[in-house]
Amino acid sequence: MNKNEKIEGVNYTLINVGNLGDLTEKTFLKDLTKSTATEISLSKMAPGEEVPFFHTHKKNEETYIILQGKGNFQVDDDCFSISEGSVIRVATSGKRCMRNTSDIAMIYIVVQSRENSLEEYSLGDGEIVEVEKKW
Amino acid sequence: MNKNEKIEGVNYTLINVGNLGDLTEKTFLKDLTKSTATEISLSKMAPGEEVPFFHTHKKNEETYIILQGKGNFQVDDDCFSISEGSVIRVATSGKRCMRNTSDIAMIYIVVQSRENSLEEYSLGDGEIVEVEKKW
Repeated sequence: MNKNEKIEGVNYTLINVGNLGDLTEKTFLKDLTKSTATEISLSKMAPGEEVPFFHTHKKNEETYIILQGKGNFQVDDDCFSISEGSVIRVATSGKRCMRNTSDIAMIYIVVQSRENSLEEYSLGDGEIVEVEKKW
Repeated sequence: MNKNEKIEGVNYTLINVGNLGDLTEKTFLKDLTKSTATEISLSKMAPGEEVPFFHTHKKNEETYIILQGKGNFQVDDDCFSISEGSVIRVATSGKRCMRNTSDIAMIYIVVQSRENSLEEYSLGDGEIVEVEKKW
């Protein structure tokens, strides 16, 4: 499947955004995938770069997942180090910002979902079904 | 920050799960980060491995993000190829399964969030605020 192709069915949307290391701009996925539940963004930040402002959210909690790079993350007055494998959940009212202090690009994913919206989760929300494999 | 350490504040939780390539089991993040909005899992599937069952969800939409590896993904009767950069949004009633056909591990993230829960999103849900940087 080539980058920017899209396949859609009744119950799904498939896209391909390519290698995350090749991202040239922040890529928001909700409209591309027709998600009704989450806005996910894929980002790459150059060595030494920082997000140019602090921000809060009105309704959405955010979860940041750092895939590559090292830096700092600040929420309100707390500043801490982050690196590959760091996962930061920030409540709507948390004032947040981050920067990349490493000499490689920082690659990270941000998941926005509406605070307090989750009811069941993990395997408890799933049901196993019988389907014939097509591969 | 070492793997499995946790830092918590009023508005956030920070954890570190380590290098995703070193995962030894599926890691669910909701309870670790105290998320109220999403269940995110981090997974590694060995070469040739497949998810051993198809499943649907009761309330949660899922978004799969493939970070490494190649394989197949099936929803209902549609089977398609996936690779690094593939993003698949599956509605609750979609019957889904996947396999890794590459000779390296498949590494992927799954985001569960409650279907139709998102209202505002992206920058429209954010507000810029003034905060003193601590770095």
